[in-house]
Amino acid sequence: MKTRHVALKQAPDGMPSLNDFQIIEAELPDLKPGEALIENLYMSVDPYMRGMMRAGASDPPAPLSGGAVGRVVRSRLDGLPEGCVVLTGSGWREHFITDSAGHERVYELSAPLSAYLGVLGMPGFTAWYGLNRIGRPQAGETLVVSAGAGAVGSLVGQLGKRAGCRVVGVVGSEEKRRYALETLGYDAALNWRKGGLGAALSEACPEGIDIYFENVGGALLEAVLDRINFGARIPVCGMISQYNLKEPEPGPSNLFQLIGRRAEMKGYIISDHGELKPQFLEEVAPLVADGSVQYSETISDGLESAPQAFIDLFLGRNIGKMAVKLNDEA
Amino acid sequence: MKTRHVALKQAPDGMPSLNDFQIIEAELPDLKPGEALIENLYMSVDPYMRGMMRAGASDPPAPLSGGAVGRVVRSRLDGLPEGCVVLTGSGWREHFITDSAGHERVYELSAPLSAYLGVLGMPGFTAWYGLNRIGRPQAGETLVVSAGAGAVGSLVGQLGKRAGCRVVGVVGSEEKRRYALETLGYDAALNWRKGGLGAALSEACPEGIDIYFENVGGALLEAVLDRINFGARIPVCGMISQYNLKEPEPGPSNLFQLIGRRAEMKGYIISDHGELKPQFLEEVAPLVADGSVQYSETISDGLESAPQAFIDLFLGRNIGKMAVKLNDEA
Repeated sequence: MKTRHVALKQAPDGMPSLNDFQIIEAELPDLKPGEALIENLYMSVDPYMRGMMRAGASDPPAPLSGGAVGRVVRSRLDGLPEGCVVLTGSGWREHFITDSAGHERVYELSAPLSAYLGVLGMPGFTAWYGLNRIGRPQAGETLVVSAGAGAVGSLVGQLGKRAGCRVVGVVGSEEKRRYALETLGYDAALNWRKGGLGAALSEACPEGIDIYFENVGGALLEAVLDRINFGARIPVCGMISQYNLKEPEPGPSNLFQLIGRRAEMKGYIISDHGELKPQFLEEVAPLVADGSVQYSETISDGLESAPQAFIDLFLGRNIGKMAVKLNDEA
Repeated sequence: MKTRHVALKQAPDGMPSLNDFQIIEAELPDLKPGEALIENLYMSVDPYMRGMMRAGASDPPAPLSGGAVGRVVRSRLDGLPEGCVVLTGSGWREHFITDSAGHERVYELSAPLSAYLGVLGMPGFTAWYGLNRIGRPQAGETLVVSAGAGAVGSLVGQLGKRAGCRVVGVVGSEEKRRYALETLGYDAALNWRKGGLGAALSEACPEGIDIYFENVGGALLEAVLDRINFGARIPVCGMISQYNLKEPEPGPSNLFQLIGRRAEMKGYIISDHGELKPQFLEEVAPLVADGSVQYSETISDGLESAPQAFIDLFLGRNIGKMAVKLNDEA
């Protein structure tokens, strides 16, 4: 049986281009006892994958990795029956063979499968953890969320609203601004591409900023630091503005604001906190199911569209979760 | 009765100069009932005072403020008897009249009076709090302390040693480097003026950096961020390299390291934590008394020397606490 995967041709130099990727066709061997064949249905593209691409091409060209939701289509493995749905780190490929029955399973679907890569997957879990454990929102506080219409940011903002915060989203287009205001229910939303970020933040945050959820880095962080309140918390989830720079960009010139404002910045990576995933799902899945939490997806079609989908992340072409559909759902 | 104080002539523009200060002679009125006259014995000069000078001269030219240790020389105020020693924020002057009996008192001297402005005063308390509450040192970890021979840093490093850390001090002269190694007992000490900071840090911290006690900002922070370990903590106490800049300097280009290393930076100001001062003194005063903790002081003589002492802080001319002696101790 034939399958396909995406591999690097070379490490991207700055902004990734289609030419950095290649589609590889491969033969899948027959299943041995103790193995199962998984057909991927959706794969995720996420900004963090850019960092993993620095290592460059492998020889032979192995599949890139990343989140995927798949279905077991043949099994000779106890504990992983045919038909079950699994979440794995084996994206960027159409099929793969596993000998582990320990993959995370989705037992009861409360949302479309693709949602398990987004609002109910790694990005949603990232949002929930960073906001609650590092941001620690209190009613009446002001929360600014960067990439506020993205897969992570859109849940951060909505959970912030539910916690009673004034939520200000910073986004990269007028369409996203409308989406943030009309669908996500933010109190204010700014399009950073319009410039005048400092003044716009001052207007949107008349009582200063208590929590800044950091997804982007760069100039926005500097503008925020000048407006943080005493005891502000800055969960540092990502700095997408920095990932494709050929030369590192200087950082904010006003980090000393952390002192006067007694503020904290704390970085985290959600894979450290897997033990909390059930609690996350218990809290957030019902909100998604009953429509209390909105989410959006930008889904491209077919493995060959994955490199462009990944590139589009950095061009801000997604609203909400960017993913790739690999096979029709059964 | 005549007294004198130091006032600003104008806000310093960049690095302070003697010309920014003036000595004012004033007449002290007679004591009224409910008042006491305090003679300052020592006054403190600290980097943080630079920020308070941005406001510029007042009219009439009022005394600058800052920590001081003084003695009550005349009292018509219940609860503040003649002869008692008080710690106040009324430095930069030889005498003052108070109507408050609520000043912090030193009841039992376990060290020379000047120590209550340094190792047993605000700088020591700052060191103890930031290291223990934000740095949270564990035995076997590596602690890097900037301004490592200064009033704050020298206690941070020694407390870090007592907690079982490998302690690396970053200092600004060969004399301080020797002091850090020979008197403070650090495992390594680097003179940043010699350049090659990154390589020197790598050599001094073969197992990476778990805690960075930030007193200086600038290039050192960037070099440290490239070498922090998972879960690193960065108490942000000060950024003396930034205080006299006419234009803000770009920050570190590698703040994204906070994410991959799951690290935190947290600013603080010790005046928020006065309730812990007794615990600090209970722990640290015996260590000073029995010589387990070393401290050094650079003390200039007379009110008229205070502006130069303050300037010398930024030139790194102090080892340990910089203070000014205003009157002979009784």
